Amino acid sequence: MHIHELDTPALVVDLDVMERNLIRMAEYTRAHGLRLRPHTKTHKSPLLGARQLANGAAGLTVAKVTEAEVMLASGTEDLLIAFPIFGAEKMRRLVEVAKKTRVTVSVDSVEAARPIAEAAAAAGIPIGVLAEVDAGLHRVGVQPELFVSLLRGLAPLKGIELRGMAFYPGHIKNQDPGALAALSTLIQGLVAEAAAAGFALPVVSGGTTPTMWHSHEVAGMNEIRPGTYIFNDRNVVLSGACTLADCAATIIATVVSTSVPGQFVIDGGSKTFSSDRAIVDGFGLFLDAPDALFEKMNEEHGYVKHAGHQRKVGERVRVLPNHICVAVNLHERIYGVRGDQVVESWTVDGRGKLQ
Amino acid sequence: MHIHELDTPALVVDLDVMERNLIRMAEYTRAHGLRLRPHTKTHKSPLLGARQLANGAAGLTVAKVTEAEVMLASGTEDLLIAFPIFGAEKMRRLVEVAKKTRVTVSVDSVEAARPIAEAAAAAGIPIGVLAEVDAGLHRVGVQPELFVSLLRGLAPLKGIELRGMAFYPGHIKNQDPGALAALSTLIQGLVAEAAAAGFALPVVSGGTTPTMWHSHEVAGMNEIRPGTYIFNDRNVVLSGACTLADCAATIIATVVSTSVPGQFVIDGGSKTFSSDRAIVDGFGLFLDAPDALFEKMNEEHGYVKHAGHQRKVGERVRVLPNHICVAVNLHERIYGVRGDQVVESWTVDGRGKLQ
Repeated sequence: MHIHELDTPALVVDLDVMERNLIRMAEYTRAHGLRLRPHTKTHKSPLLGARQLANGAAGLTVAKVTEAEVMLASGTEDLLIAFPIFGAEKMRRLVEVAKKTRVTVSVDSVEAARPIAEAAAAAGIPIGVLAEVDAGLHRVGVQPELFVSLLRGLAPLKGIELRGMAFYPGHIKNQDPGALAALSTLIQGLVAEAAAAGFALPVVSGGTTPTMWHSHEVAGMNEIRPGTYIFNDRNVVLSGACTLADCAATIIATVVSTSVPGQFVIDGGSKTFSSDRAIVDGFGLFLDAPDALFEKMNEEHGYVKHAGHQRKVGERVRVLPNHICVAVNLHERIYGVRGDQVVESWTVDGRGKLQ
Repeated sequence: MHIHELDTPALVVDLDVMERNLIRMAEYTRAHGLRLRPHTKTHKSPLLGARQLANGAAGLTVAKVTEAEVMLASGTEDLLIAFPIFGAEKMRRLVEVAKKTRVTVSVDSVEAARPIAEAAAAAGIPIGVLAEVDAGLHRVGVQPELFVSLLRGLAPLKGIELRGMAFYPGHIKNQDPGALAALSTLIQGLVAEAAAAGFALPVVSGGTTPTMWHSHEVAGMNEIRPGTYIFNDRNVVLSGACTLADCAATIIATVVSTSVPGQFVIDGGSKTFSSDRAIVDGFGLFLDAPDALFEKMNEEHGYVKHAGHQRKVGERVRVLPNHICVAVNLHERIYGVRGDQVVESWTVDGRGKLQ
């Protein structure tokens, strides 16, 4: 099928670019002795999880128990739930997942770890935990000075195995060398402090897409969990970690109205792109009209100030989203293209898995 | 099932409040001789569309052809697609929908109307159109001075029936009497101008939830298409069109981390609430801690500055979303509650219908 036959809005992935991204990351992590456990939140598809495993990933990462259930179909033998899950129904489902593959959960409190331990002990299946530290994003993770206290609190819990530490340096958006050096010092210090207290941390798991090519500079980190690198997006380009040529996923939309002077309107808004912003203006980049400003959106309408690049009703435009992970979550299906031919498509099986 | 047994995050609808909202709107539109054609984008469920029809709605509104397909299950005998659809696949599916129920599409250009007319003529099934005017939102709709020109352009097209006019006064967010009076003058003038040019406009369709109780003040308007009124949300409260007691839909979340001082983190972020903002700070209102500020979100994490209302890991909180329509689109299922009992649940069949 030719790409022009796709109904719009359509999320298309350039398979050549995606494969190049997968290979590049496999080579980088192999060269630096890093374990690769990609976060599957970007694609939400077991088919792509399987391709990551075929390209050097040692396991996969998810954020939710329901995503773990979906991602079992990738055939992964190692799943990390990088979120402090809590609740009886989640514990029941977690145990079911743990019966099928090796599972680890990141935790930042004894309160969150205890029900996991109880569920694991009751089922007789050990579940791993990574002790999470706040490396500067100030989201989850114990404060660094409380890290060893967390390890001490986790130690007596039967049913769980302490497999290492986790952190997410999402505050480093532009590969700032100072911030990377500070992160390296922090992590190295915590690993040493834990060792001195008698805690071995076989896994030291961190990493983001913006910092991906600097992962080997973080002393002690031996596993990374980048997500967006498989597709990349406008935010990754703006972070300096990739170029436009490395962006595999775009959204094709149709111009449906030119009635308001200075503007055209496309058939996709926040329901198609999400309302996530970038550090620069606009809800996405028009690849064939980079001066056009994707200024506003409602659910179904995207407002574009055309800046002289007027388009006609019925014309198609191609947009690079600010944040591809949230855009993928809005789509039922992704189309894989080579050149201008649609050669495959797959459902986003993990979309909307909130629990 | 008790509400506390629901896994989180969960979207719950208080059925008593929802039913009161439906009845109030039915009474208002009946009292003022207005035709009610609710926009189903808020609930995306044929089951709730059917309840709107049972509560005085004469038809339903959707924004996409795929939503029209889903909404056929409501049993509606009249569907408006309030979006200028374009594309061969959409025309094929539109004709299939038109074989099953009466369909009207709003259009703001001859370019968008022509393929609809051609598809309708080829199938031998007339499809209705409403000529759309820009009433001040500057999104779609011809500029008012070109309204009669649009009518003249549509007239020769075989296959479509001009059934009236459409507009969407989404720029009036706070029931401003001056803006409402200006809208009334504009619409009345356009209807008179069309009549003078020989065009009868049986349907004059407009309306929004923020302006809902002032609909009868807009001269000439005989049909309204509110959507959010069925549930209401924080934005509607802020518009002054309803109170907190009229908000039927809330999201139950669990506190999963308190590791960062001054803050708690809940198990829902932009993937659960959407990143839509309100005219005031925060991504939602904490009903049991209104001073807490829902300050930031990532996909799965909601960051709340607790302002003294600290919560413990595992506690549940109830959040009123800023914009319920986009939140519903992110959920697979909605739970209907009476008091603290979950008495029914339904799938969001229309979620993610982008084409």
